[in-house]
Amino acid sequence: MKSAIAELEAKGKAAREASKRLAYLSTDVKNRALGNISRDLLARKAEILAANKEDYKEAEASGMSAHMLDRLMLNGSRLEAIAGDVLNIAALPDPVGEIFDMRTQPNGLQIGKKRVPLGVIGAIYESRPNVTIDISSLCLKSGNAVLLRGGKEAVRSNSALARVVQEASINAGMPDGAVQFVENTDRALVDHLLSMRGVIDLIIPRGGSGLIRSVAEKASMPVVTGGIGVCHTYVDKSADIEQAVAIVHNAKVQRPTVCNALDTVLVHAEIAGVYLPLLAAELGKAGVELHGDQRTQAILKTQPGLRLIPATDGDWGKEFLSLVAAIRVVDSLDEALEHIEHYGSGHSEAIVTEDYSSAMRFLNEVDAACVYVNASTRFTDGAQFGLGAEVGISTQKFHARGPLGLKELTTYKWIIYGSGQIRT
Amino acid sequence: MKSAIAELEAKGKAAREASKRLAYLSTDVKNRALGNISRDLLARKAEILAANKEDYKEAEASGMSAHMLDRLMLNGSRLEAIAGDVLNIAALPDPVGEIFDMRTQPNGLQIGKKRVPLGVIGAIYESRPNVTIDISSLCLKSGNAVLLRGGKEAVRSNSALARVVQEASINAGMPDGAVQFVENTDRALVDHLLSMRGVIDLIIPRGGSGLIRSVAEKASMPVVTGGIGVCHTYVDKSADIEQAVAIVHNAKVQRPTVCNALDTVLVHAEIAGVYLPLLAAELGKAGVELHGDQRTQAILKTQPGLRLIPATDGDWGKEFLSLVAAIRVVDSLDEALEHIEHYGSGHSEAIVTEDYSSAMRFLNEVDAACVYVNASTRFTDGAQFGLGAEVGISTQKFHARGPLGLKELTTYKWIIYGSGQIRT
Repeated sequence: MKSAIAELEAKGKAAREASKRLAYLSTDVKNRALGNISRDLLARKAEILAANKEDYKEAEASGMSAHMLDRLMLNGSRLEAIAGDVLNIAALPDPVGEIFDMRTQPNGLQIGKKRVPLGVIGAIYESRPNVTIDISSLCLKSGNAVLLRGGKEAVRSNSALARVVQEASINAGMPDGAVQFVENTDRALVDHLLSMRGVIDLIIPRGGSGLIRSVAEKASMPVVTGGIGVCHTYVDKSADIEQAVAIVHNAKVQRPTVCNALDTVLVHAEIAGVYLPLLAAELGKAGVELHGDQRTQAILKTQPGLRLIPATDGDWGKEFLSLVAAIRVVDSLDEALEHIEHYGSGHSEAIVTEDYSSAMRFLNEVDAACVYVNASTRFTDGAQFGLGAEVGISTQKFHARGPLGLKELTTYKWIIYGSGQIRT
Repeated sequence: MKSAIAELEAKGKAAREASKRLAYLSTDVKNRALGNISRDLLARKAEILAANKEDYKEAEASGMSAHMLDRLMLNGSRLEAIAGDVLNIAALPDPVGEIFDMRTQPNGLQIGKKRVPLGVIGAIYESRPNVTIDISSLCLKSGNAVLLRGGKEAVRSNSALARVVQEASINAGMPDGAVQFVENTDRALVDHLLSMRGVIDLIIPRGGSGLIRSVAEKASMPVVTGGIGVCHTYVDKSADIEQAVAIVHNAKVQRPTVCNALDTVLVHAEIAGVYLPLLAAELGKAGVELHGDQRTQAILKTQPGLRLIPATDGDWGKEFLSLVAAIRVVDSLDEALEHIEHYGSGHSEAIVTEDYSSAMRFLNEVDAACVYVNASTRFTDGAQFGLGAEVGISTQKFHARGPLGLKELTTYKWIIYGSGQIRT
């Protein structure tokens, strides 16, 4: 363990050193590195897939679930998609060096802010090996060094991918040490990594809620927490019924395993009798299991073809990540707002309404990263929001909220052009 | 202790409740509250000064230093200045509600960001009672609730001031509970306060480096650290000599006890023989004690009227907060940059130069909150930077850097106006 810690500290130091050069590297060099990475991911396909196959076999033998095995698995077409994403990041504008809020003070000082990288980003993630490429590419484009620590089950895949990134970026003129990969998957080493304040400027945990909570509690440096979404859609009494069916259906069904998928539908009592049977029929066709409160059950109990069970207290505030939706009938917008405040996770919340004042109240009063009127919460995503790509979705308020793109991996420094000014 | 903790938790809960209404209070109400506070500080002068007199007497009897007693002391003119500052904050633009980065996506979704308060700010501070008014006013104007925990030595003064703020703001229509004051100064209670993640959104420690370090280590929620400045000015070989004397003199002498005051002068060897005698003469007149490296001593040793002693290793990277300056002769800009990187605290750093490329390299390569060309580091200040007022100066990179004004007490939420969009 002692030598593993020494090695980790050496990697941290090397990343820190590299970050100084990365901070003012030209956009050309950064884009060339991303181009090389994309190219080499395909050129070295055999090597990468062979490493992944070993991980996969071992995971399969150890009894990993089909769902998790699917997350771990790479193949030719997945690798092509990953390589394509890297080119997309290369095509995004470079956030570093932007000068903003520049103004001349009465004493002649020109004072403004210049966008600079955060420094060294630590990434702690679980089984999906694409995160290795994803986070490396975003960090390099934003001028940050990165220290990668992936899951044990994907260590061969991640190691092969990190090697490609390291070699391809160095060949493009990036400083040696910009991308560090921690092979040792001992848990105690993560604890040490989380104590390296002053070396690592920000930790990004990617994975389940257990991982994220544990990292947030232990880290001595800033952490971006997020990725957990208990998402509500409130169907107001004035909603366009057809639109409300389509939006809730989309939010629940289009990709139920992700954080911006719907968990609970809140329906105004005045519209519930008309709306719920139509919604339930559509959700039923998609195989959604409904957990309804008493009033929902009273409305839907005679409807054939539904998987409808009584909602329990545990259903409110639960992130289902599957084809399950909780449904509750409420008597007012206020009741819906209270429910969301109590049970929401601050991720994505929506109202469907034709009433202007209800829409504006919802936008104003819901305290979440993303608040929608008349649209599916599934849009909470860096690409959909026009950021090009994302390192994650923040549900904290500090620094940045919602999808985190390249700009959110930067900070600024104040720059001051003087001509001999002194303070009197 | 149990009842003190229960009381603290009740105050936290009340602040949290109040923060919901504060978040969308009109600017008028907030400004009226600040107007009332300013007025009542003067109207209730007798009550406030009587409380302060008691604190002062007790502190004096306990043997507090004259310097600390001066920080603790309030009088009529100080109270007038504090009341004036509150009106200045009222005059600043309200940051809350600003809509920015709004754009229409190809699918017709209008996506943008809306500036909102952080929520509940916790302030932990030492002897200066003006911080009670300062932080409350900035928090209220930016729509945040605040939980104040001042030092033991100023508890009567802080309590009287907090009462004024509470009553004056409620009279203006602010929600009850927006300003909470913790009377109990037990240290264990601070530890509990720092564990209240989910209730308090941000902690601002104000005081010495010991307090700041301890809060940063213990807090479970985000903390803004800063206020510690090891500031360098590098005098390049191409510097305008007269300007360089004036700038260094100002940075050291104008107010030596604050964080943006100069600590170390770095001088290029080619100019040191001419520059240092002129600088030393001026600093000598102001009573500055010089800690010179060997080459500095060789140049200055025969100069009369100086307090010059050899610099020790401990002088580099030291925040003197007094009329002491360390001086080192360097052979190049690179050597100066290395020194600053090694010993700087990331607060404020300056170069004096007439060489364009040296100026640009310094601005690019120095990693600090504020980087100056040809000006005194004393300008690092919210008012000087055009922010109107500040809650502190951040030397961390996350969220905000340098002087923190009203805007830095806010975050944003994404707001999305749809017309039935679903994701395909």
